[in-house]
Amino acid sequence: MKKPKFEPSEAVLSGETADVYFAHTIDILRHEGLNPVATIEVFSSRAGMLCGIEEVKALLAKVLPEDKREVWALTEGESMDRKEVVLRITASYQSYGLYETAICGILAHCSGWATAAGECVAAARGIPIISFGARHVHPSVAGIMDYSAIVGGCAGCSSVAGARLVGIEPSGTMPHALIIVIGDTVKATITFDKYMPPEVPRISLVDTFKDEPEESLRVAEALGGKLNSVRLDTPGERGRVTADLVKEVRARLDMAGFNKVKIFVSGGLDPERISYFLESKALVDGFGVGSYISGARPIDFTADLHEIEGKPIAKRGRIPGITPSPRLKRVM
Amino acid sequence: MKKPKFEPSEAVLSGETADVYFAHTIDILRHEGLNPVATIEVFSSRAGMLCGIEEVKALLAKVLPEDKREVWALTEGESMDRKEVVLRITASYQSYGLYETAICGILAHCSGWATAAGECVAAARGIPIISFGARHVHPSVAGIMDYSAIVGGCAGCSSVAGARLVGIEPSGTMPHALIIVIGDTVKATITFDKYMPPEVPRISLVDTFKDEPEESLRVAEALGGKLNSVRLDTPGERGRVTADLVKEVRARLDMAGFNKVKIFVSGGLDPERISYFLESKALVDGFGVGSYISGARPIDFTADLHEIEGKPIAKRGRIPGITPSPRLKRVM
Amino acid sequence: MKKPKFEPSEAVLSGETADVYFAHTIDILRHEGLNPVATIEVFSSRAGMLCGIEEVKALLAKVLPEDKREVWALTEGESMDRKEVVLRITASYQSYGLYETAICGILAHCSGWATAAGECVAAARGIPIISFGARHVHPSVAGIMDYSAIVGGCAGCSSVAGARLVGIEPSGTMPHALIIVIGDTVKATITFDKYMPPEVPRISLVDTFKDEPEESLRVAEALGGKLNSVRLDTPGERGRVTADLVKEVRARLDMAGFNKVKIFVSGGLDPERISYFLESKALVDGFGVGSYISGARPIDFTADLHEIEGKPIAKRGRIPGITPSPRLKRVM
Amino acid sequence: MKKPKFEPSEAVLSGETADVYFAHTIDILRHEGLNPVATIEVFSSRAGMLCGIEEVKALLAKVLPEDKREVWALTEGESMDRKEVVLRITASYQSYGLYETAICGILAHCSGWATAAGECVAAARGIPIISFGARHVHPSVAGIMDYSAIVGGCAGCSSVAGARLVGIEPSGTMPHALIIVIGDTVKATITFDKYMPPEVPRISLVDTFKDEPEESLRVAEALGGKLNSVRLDTPGERGRVTADLVKEVRARLDMAGFNKVKIFVSGGLDPERISYFLESKALVDGFGVGSYISGARPIDFTADLHEIEGKPIAKRGRIPGITPSPRLKRVM
Amino acid sequence: MKKPKFEPSEAVLSGETADVYFAHTIDILRHEGLNPVATIEVFSSRAGMLCGIEEVKALLAKVLPEDKREVWALTEGESMDRKEVVLRITASYQSYGLYETAICGILAHCSGWATAAGECVAAARGIPIISFGARHVHPSVAGIMDYSAIVGGCAGCSSVAGARLVGIEPSGTMPHALIIVIGDTVKATITFDKYMPPEVPRISLVDTFKDEPEESLRVAEALGGKLNSVRLDTPGERGRVTADLVKEVRARLDMAGFNKVKIFVSGGLDPERISYFLESKALVDGFGVGSYISGARPIDFTADLHEIEGKPIAKRGRIPGITPSPRLKRVM
Amino acid sequence: MKKPKFEPSEAVLSGETADVYFAHTIDILRHEGLNPVATIEVFSSRAGMLCGIEEVKALLAKVLPEDKREVWALTEGESMDRKEVVLRITASYQSYGLYETAICGILAHCSGWATAAGECVAAARGIPIISFGARHVHPSVAGIMDYSAIVGGCAGCSSVAGARLVGIEPSGTMPHALIIVIGDTVKATITFDKYMPPEVPRISLVDTFKDEPEESLRVAEALGGKLNSVRLDTPGERGRVTADLVKEVRARLDMAGFNKVKIFVSGGLDPERISYFLESKALVDGFGVGSYISGARPIDFTADLHEIEGKPIAKRGRIPGITPSPRLKRVM
Repeated sequence: MKKPKFEPSEAVLSGETADVYFAHTIDILRHEGLNPVATIEVFSSRAGMLCGIEEVKALLAKVLPEDKREVWALTEGESMDRKEVVLRITASYQSYGLYETAICGILAHCSGWATAAGECVAAARGIPIISFGARHVHPSVAGIMDYSAIVGGCAGCSSVAGARLVGIEPSGTMPHALIIVIGDTVKATITFDKYMPPEVPRISLVDTFKDEPEESLRVAEALGGKLNSVRLDTPGERGRVTADLVKEVRARLDMAGFNKVKIFVSGGLDPERISYFLESKALVDGFGVGSYISGARPIDFTADLHEIEGKPIAKRGRIPGITPSPRLKRVM
Repeated sequence: MKKPKFEPSEAVLSGETADVYFAHTIDILRHEGLNPVATIEVFSSRAGMLCGIEEVKALLAKVLPEDKREVWALTEGESMDRKEVVLRITASYQSYGLYETAICGILAHCSGWATAAGECVAAARGIPIISFGARHVHPSVAGIMDYSAIVGGCAGCSSVAGARLVGIEPSGTMPHALIIVIGDTVKATITFDKYMPPEVPRISLVDTFKDEPEESLRVAEALGGKLNSVRLDTPGERGRVTADLVKEVRARLDMAGFNKVKIFVSGGLDPERISYFLESKALVDGFGVGSYISGARPIDFTADLHEIEGKPIAKRGRIPGITPSPRLKRVM
Repeated sequence: MKKPKFEPSEAVLSGETADVYFAHTIDILRHEGLNPVATIEVFSSRAGMLCGIEEVKALLAKVLPEDKREVWALTEGESMDRKEVVLRITASYQSYGLYETAICGILAHCSGWATAAGECVAAARGIPIISFGARHVHPSVAGIMDYSAIVGGCAGCSSVAGARLVGIEPSGTMPHALIIVIGDTVKATITFDKYMPPEVPRISLVDTFKDEPEESLRVAEALGGKLNSVRLDTPGERGRVTADLVKEVRARLDMAGFNKVKIFVSGGLDPERISYFLESKALVDGFGVGSYISGARPIDFTADLHEIEGKPIAKRGRIPGITPSPRLKRVM
Repeated sequence: MKKPKFEPSEAVLSGETADVYFAHTIDILRHEGLNPVATIEVFSSRAGMLCGIEEVKALLAKVLPEDKREVWALTEGESMDRKEVVLRITASYQSYGLYETAICGILAHCSGWATAAGECVAAARGIPIISFGARHVHPSVAGIMDYSAIVGGCAGCSSVAGARLVGIEPSGTMPHALIIVIGDTVKATITFDKYMPPEVPRISLVDTFKDEPEESLRVAEALGGKLNSVRLDTPGERGRVTADLVKEVRARLDMAGFNKVKIFVSGGLDPERISYFLESKALVDGFGVGSYISGARPIDFTADLHEIEGKPIAKRGRIPGITPSPRLKRVM
Repeated sequence: MKKPKFEPSEAVLSGETADVYFAHTIDILRHEGLNPVATIEVFSSRAGMLCGIEEVKALLAKVLPEDKREVWALTEGESMDRKEVVLRITASYQSYGLYETAICGILAHCSGWATAAGECVAAARGIPIISFGARHVHPSVAGIMDYSAIVGGCAGCSSVAGARLVGIEPSGTMPHALIIVIGDTVKATITFDKYMPPEVPRISLVDTFKDEPEESLRVAEALGGKLNSVRLDTPGERGRVTADLVKEVRARLDMAGFNKVKIFVSGGLDPERISYFLESKALVDGFGVGSYISGARPIDFTADLHEIEGKPIAKRGRIPGITPSPRLKRVM
Repeated sequence: MKKPKFEPSEAVLSGETADVYFAHTIDILRHEGLNPVATIEVFSSRAGMLCGIEEVKALLAKVLPEDKREVWALTEGESMDRKEVVLRITASYQSYGLYETAICGILAHCSGWATAAGECVAAARGIPIISFGARHVHPSVAGIMDYSAIVGGCAGCSSVAGARLVGIEPSGTMPHALIIVIGDTVKATITFDKYMPPEVPRISLVDTFKDEPEESLRVAEALGGKLNSVRLDTPGERGRVTADLVKEVRARLDMAGFNKVKIFVSGGLDPERISYFLESKALVDGFGVGSYISGARPIDFTADLHEIEGKPIAKRGRIPGITPSPRLKRVM
């Protein structure tokens, strides 16, 4: 994974995506000529994996005055505790006050996705996971969601935008639609093989028309050594993919001599379901996870002012002054 | 609420936000010269309120061939059952196959937000709700999230982008930051009043430095008839906002003659908490709801091909042919 | 259902199947010359459907003195309450004391089976149920178990012995074994049709080798109008039979013009699962129920002496004298 | 326990107790001249103790062709895992196909009983358990039920038939009926002692008419050194047998010098209740267990063909070919 | 029940039983010459039956200045809601400030007892309940506890002190001790009858030495028409008193012609257990309830100042000024 | 804690607080001239801390014949098991029979209080606990309740009577009433300081009118080094005292240089809540516990005769004779 280059959008920079009361606040302070050096601390509402801090840093780099700023933060992908400070900014308040909404929102959404991805990755104990959930989020965040999933440990993602952010090839097999339009799984697989460049792995989706073991043998026989994997995505109406099904497909493929054909599983996966396959000793070679990652609840972040012109202050319920946070590193 | 004008982004149109296997599919079908008229049906994985269909229609209007297309759909904001078909498209497959990811994703995220907003609105039985959750989502979807909340029945929203989409003024009070920078709630409220245009309601946030009833009386006395509301946002460390607190603030304001000053409540609200205020007979005049709406789980949607060139077909587990769906209306 | 003719076995009559202490008791009483007229009452430990009383009456008819006996009982198949008296015998104690074990045992096992069958029949609201559970009980009771299931409301049973007891034809389709030995479902169905007498309904088992809807269409096309039903018995490894599967098989058969072919469902059925099919509006035409009926827990019965030579008596915990039981009818 | 000699009944051999579809299958295969060498494997639906395999072997010995057969099995009384293969038969299919119902049924019922008995025996940690449950099953299986209980570890049983199968004396005390007919516990005990042969232990049932400790002292004084035990079988209406009652009877017997009189407990016992006595340190000398053993749910068994003429095959959901089962021993 | 005459004790009047900080407070106010007319309101922490208000009134009558006082209260035995004001005092603060501890304490303990008694009385639907719990509280409150139980609806009580307070005869049967000292239940009952004055009902305790039905018949035969009741108090070690035991004792007494002998039940009773007897249709003629009433948790009361010299005031969390309480009546 | 001197009251000695049936029993035995030497054993219904035995011994010392008595007991404050004998009396029955009610009642109530106090003390791991619950019990037992709390490990108590019993000064801060009458927390604290003798610690209650941290700083500044502690007693309507509040008050006091001012917490405390403060690492210096101790359920005690004139005897359900109880010590 290469380091992505984030660029704050005009909508963010202009305050269009902000809560309006921050715009009001900056307005009032300007009228009053108030622009103290202020320290704000951002902490998370629950434990998880921090993500989005790179995008936040790109924003801060653009808006904070270069000479009089100090930014401390945890690193992209680091774990964080509940209520732990993950970011501390000291600068003139007017330079960043408008961006509290965006800073919290980026961290909330990205950390939610990365944390969920991390749970799946942990459950899979080394078996690669591909993020398949672009279809469950608004396209405006499809790319950043897949980026967060990869920060969380996923081996790949299906969206072009997400893959581009981290500089890898997007992963994918074939949709049911291709098979239905062509009308037969074997024929669709052969056609796929015919036109796809050699670096795209041949993964055939085998639950569209026939019983999965039967279809697996058919495509394996048709494609021979070129078949990389079969994908099982059995719908709930057919009992979804079970460990027994994986074992039977594996056994029947092996009996027919196709030991090298891998088995890729998708459909309603989450850490519990992934563990079930591992505990049942079903030999899965890869998992495609969708809405467990992309539909993960954002992790709420809170930003609190703790010092104004070097003097400790805080709202009721918070401790005034700098919170001791030895894990923070100075990043700006 | 005015009807928003949606414009598909270049990233969507180019397939950049799509799952890569749809790009592969279109590629293969083009090579094979296969472009049948195909009917796809989109249904939801759970009951809720449909949202996002306007943005989807804007996308389809751009990509479907004008002469040979037929689109049926439910209306923005309509309720939908689990597994109900909410959208049916009949057109040449190559014209829309690439957009399955975006179509499902728009509907998933927007319907999730609108459904959650609708639950809060139902619980509030007529008391207005303002969407305050922009700070919990990525800024790229802050506007569309607030749009969905308003489709779900919210009376307003805090983000400029969301308000702009529906042609209203964004709603907001003042942040704790303004009070902390100025150093006193009464002073902050007077300054706010000094610079804000008259159409912005004077709502003072009264939990920053002192006990809420005391601060409420202080700002009411300072601003007199101009004070529209006090906002209670008491943090968890101080027991968050309770029905008893609302009643006491109401009683103390009334005793001091401030019967017209309204009480606005925010902080960790969800339908259950809103009901608690109503059932406790605490007289709240408005609620600000954050992450219950903005962090709502997307509602997964599935798209299935049901006819190819007029012939019923379906993958295993689905019934081939057009699903009888009398509530659909032809929209294109 | 004809009235079965029960004949007590030599093992029962000789006391071989009895608890040995009853043999001792009769022995002692004979030595002492004690043979009072005694009244015993038999009651059930839980509510349910009484079954076995016909077999008990056949035993009593054989052993009680013809001139000095009085037997009152509920009727085969009647419902009974917890602790309700279902049988009262007045006769010389030596004539029946040895058979307390057999009387309680017959009622316990048969009432357990009939009660479970009755629960399935109630859940099925008119759709016929066939008892398929002979394979889960010892062959010595396979017949009486199926008899009890039919008393409980089943429309038929699979064991020859059970069917013979009630004078009907045993019901059955074909086992997986036939299909596996022949090697193909269609071929097996054709062979079945070739040799079976016309009164045996043609029911093809369609989950052995291929996906059920595909196989259903294959056998329907092969047998044409002669096919009575398809049987779905999908194993757990394939998600067992679901309501969605029934609906899809029904839809695909109908689309191909086989509206008259019925659907018979078996595999792990119990009242809850039967209700699930009905509530899901899956059109099932018959259910085969196995171990829910045949593995039903026997309903314990207790026999208590309540009068000796006309004088009320009872052990501690019981009320001496005849228990008022207006539902009992004199049967001997 | 001697090794019992099982003899298949005519009803089993004739197929009368079988599911009719096996008769049909054999019929069809004969007409077609199909009689391949087939391998069937039998496995259990849950873990437990295998019982009935001796009776099954007696059946197979009678029906399989002597020259071309191979039978592998676990041993009577061995523990088995869920889904473990307990029996594998290789022979011409027509020779044994008809007996699948009986084979599964014998194993199901006997293993259910033996497993439940084994649980009680384990809970009793060395204190002997007598199977008292003949009164809760149909007399046709009273003997085989008690046989299975003894395989499960019981020290004895009450039915004559069960005891005969394993070559021991049946165990028993005296029923309430004897005491009620005679009218007094002491008198009944003396009469019992008068006529019973010396090898029958003198066990007096002491809950019929008077408080148990009082009655215990009365019979101990009346019978002196000849009294082996008192049996407590207190009904639920009197709080059934409690650990405190056992302790008090023990204490009062000891105080009166009857330290050698043992205490035998019966009535509603199961492993949990047995453990309760042991954990309460109540000194029980023997337990009589009834319907927990005799009413135990049969353990369902499944029989699957895995090879036809040496070629691996299986229905959907099962793995074709011989299942590796190192614990099986060749028995035929 | 006559109206009791309460007299405040010297320990209460002197402030010895008070929290010391009230003594400090009065001290300080005297030094400062502060003695405003103050209004205090007392409310309960949960719903229940108010008791103790008569004793509180007796205290206030003694300490409040006769000319300038106003006391409003609910009535002894009235039901009260959670947080309902049950007492409001307006007088010079120094006259009553010292007694806040005593006022709250009297109401707390007495209302706790009366509320528990009321629950038992409600469950018994007209069958009389005797308070038997003096043995579970300190003797200093045995009388006031029984008084509260009678306010709660009990028909009598066992303590002499409690009975004296309300001007009735104490109720009682005989203790196990009398029977054990005398050595036989029948002999003890006869001796009891010999010396007790005629107005004391002859109630024999029948669970000491023999089974209850046996002992019941023995005492009934010995005392003939003079026996009023038998009391069942079976210990847990013998299964405590069950509905079946009551029914059997009733039946055996009736069979022997003792229809007029009543059955009184005690031992571990609470509303649930009382309901169980009524729902089981066991004919109990009286219940003796012990620690459910006497060990009832006190109901905490809180006293809050709401006006000082006619001006509304209150601590944080409470509404200043007089709480509208239409159910209060002026009592002083 | 000095050893208190207990003196039995006239009401106890006269039998006025006893169950009337003991008076009857003594009466009858006197008439019959029966006064055997009898041994009674008293045991508890659940585990806990024994308390009240000193008061019981004072009673027994007064009533038992000096020459022929033997009393064995556990020690005040010792732990006891469920059903353990805590007291054994051997003396002429008439000398103590009347006092069974009082003996059991004293032990029940006092042990209940001491046990609850002990649970709080254990949870507080060394932080002192003051018993604040006099206001939740009848004043007649306020002193003995606080005595029991101190036996249970409390460091002090608020009632004068309780403190007097153990020879310490009563503990207390100031009530809300003092502050409300004076009208301001700072003024009330200064006045308190003005009149209280130097040995009374200056503890200011800081939740009456203003937010606690603000008020804490105000009183600290007003009293300077003389301020011992602030007391937090925040009502439920303001979220009661939380660990976060304690931490914030601590932090703000420390920041202002008041490191020596301690924090005392009260309001709805129980062992679970105390543990919550400790586990949250909130630095509390003392806890005031009210109704968890004073409203604790009494622990029922039972008294059973076990020997009459040296001969073992007991009622049904108990073991006759002396119960081996090695922990008992002879005390009389």
